[in-house]
Amino acid sequence: MSLLIALDWGTSSLRAYLMEDGKVLDQRHSPYGIQHLPEPGGVKGYEVAFESICGDWRKQYPDVSVVTGGMVGSAQGWSEAPYVRCPADLSDLAKKAGQATLPDGGTLHIVPGVLLDDPDLAPDVIRGEEIQIAGALIDHDDWWQASRILLPGTHSKWVTMNGGKLESFSTYMTGEIFAVLCDHSILGRLMPEEKASKEEADKAFDLGLSVAKHGGAGDLTHQLFATRTMGLTERMPKEALSNYMSGLLIGNELTSATRELQDDASLPLIMIGDGALCDLYKRALASFGLECTAQFDNTAHIGLWNFAETSGLI
Amino acid sequence: MSLLIALDWGTSSLRAYLMEDGKVLDQRHSPYGIQHLPEPGGVKGYEVAFESICGDWRKQYPDVSVVTGGMVGSAQGWSEAPYVRCPADLSDLAKKAGQATLPDGGTLHIVPGVLLDDPDLAPDVIRGEEIQIAGALIDHDDWWQASRILLPGTHSKWVTMNGGKLESFSTYMTGEIFAVLCDHSILGRLMPEEKASKEEADKAFDLGLSVAKHGGAGDLTHQLFATRTMGLTERMPKEALSNYMSGLLIGNELTSATRELQDDASLPLIMIGDGALCDLYKRALASFGLECTAQFDNTAHIGLWNFAETSGLI
Repeated sequence: MSLLIALDWGTSSLRAYLMEDGKVLDQRHSPYGIQHLPEPGGVKGYEVAFESICGDWRKQYPDVSVVTGGMVGSAQGWSEAPYVRCPADLSDLAKKAGQATLPDGGTLHIVPGVLLDDPDLAPDVIRGEEIQIAGALIDHDDWWQASRILLPGTHSKWVTMNGGKLESFSTYMTGEIFAVLCDHSILGRLMPEEKASKEEADKAFDLGLSVAKHGGAGDLTHQLFATRTMGLTERMPKEALSNYMSGLLIGNELTSATRELQDDASLPLIMIGDGALCDLYKRALASFGLECTAQFDNTAHIGLWNFAETSGLI
Repeated sequence: MSLLIALDWGTSSLRAYLMEDGKVLDQRHSPYGIQHLPEPGGVKGYEVAFESICGDWRKQYPDVSVVTGGMVGSAQGWSEAPYVRCPADLSDLAKKAGQATLPDGGTLHIVPGVLLDDPDLAPDVIRGEEIQIAGALIDHDDWWQASRILLPGTHSKWVTMNGGKLESFSTYMTGEIFAVLCDHSILGRLMPEEKASKEEADKAFDLGLSVAKHGGAGDLTHQLFATRTMGLTERMPKEALSNYMSGLLIGNELTSATRELQDDASLPLIMIGDGALCDLYKRALASFGLECTAQFDNTAHIGLWNFAETSGLI
């Protein structure tokens, strides 16, 4: 019997999986992301969070290996795991793994992030998505050879797989910018608590997409102001203003990220993420004449199991 | 003797001018912008703010007229003054003026805003800038006939004057987006209190401008993430990250707003705003091969004097 505790430990949440022979026996979810630890600052908060989510699993199986991926391995995390550079061989992640010491003296094995550091481009980083990708692609040799992977979210990632490696990627701050503009800018002030009807929401989202699609370089900060003026002039119900803004932001992301995809529509496009968000992106992709080849929910536990295997931990 | 109290009443500040025959006799500044009133909600806050900044002037000259422009005339202001539509004859603003009642029973005359409501475009609005423009252009018939006016700030405005009228304009949320990303996003977390040296700040700002200038449609939310990764990878001193982000945002604004200007370099470009901010924009314009024809600091009091004259108040 081969057992594993696999942790998907991000900025705003922590997921724990108790696994046996690649299958999930039990799983738990906690809000103790690295920005929301029970005791902020220092190692103690990580130890308390770990104990609270899976201390009992470790007591029940004292020899079980523990692996984790995500922001827990960043400079602001429990212990920094260095970046692997692009083009990155994801089967190689185990060689660069980081470590931390568990409260009972055992070892936590931490998946490294991936760094794109082309001197001609601004650098870019991934932490957590690499293990999701390793999980989603596990049985698909053809996707390892050539595909684009989209992981929509707070920081959307567009990843290019080529020749078996993670060749390059781009981060778009779509989700975070949407949230800070709703919560902290003048654009949020006209947005009521109430949600628009599905029909109104779709209509506003599609209009935002269309404006983005027909926009030129640099237009976004102008386009966004219409989220206010569409409400002021009552051209759009206030309940739908956030959908319009979402359409503008996702539309800008797609305009930029799919520029090359448009030339190679045969390249598989794989989406990994939360179902509702993926549905929104599918609607947006369709309006750009694109569709995704396959869609996965959270695949971190599969990638973590594979990481533990190549690390010789199971 | 012709006396006037002129108020430039915006979102975050209130300026009061006591004027005689077009000249400023005395001026005062208060933080009581419409978002920072001494008593929020309702008319009372406006009355208290008015009394505190110039109640004594009214007592000394009980017959003096009082005019104001800016967000004080918005739907969230003291009393709403309707919008004049583009193409807008600024000498006509007096005909659409709004009114409120002063604490002593007198009348506050409020300058209308300007609305661009082309059904083929998203709507756009100006409030306060129209009176700055009326002030800056007062002795320049040629600029009324054909010019572009740039008012950089929280919401930068690019205005096209044509045939004596304010023909059209575009708002860019450059300053507000800069502030909310510094204060509320992950990008601000790597930014220290300390400022970069002038040399480092200029270098980072110029690099941001260059990235923006060479970017394609929709790239901004990707470009912004580099404000984090440039710091993470130590390619740039952390003190200069905010200058880099400023370069990206102003560079995107210029890329979009000067698209047509590039075709008509003979069109006068007039800048109105705070000196330090105008200097930053001049540096950015230069890197786009453009320069401004003339630069003005706050010209609201001149525009308000003119408004009072055409209103028959003096």
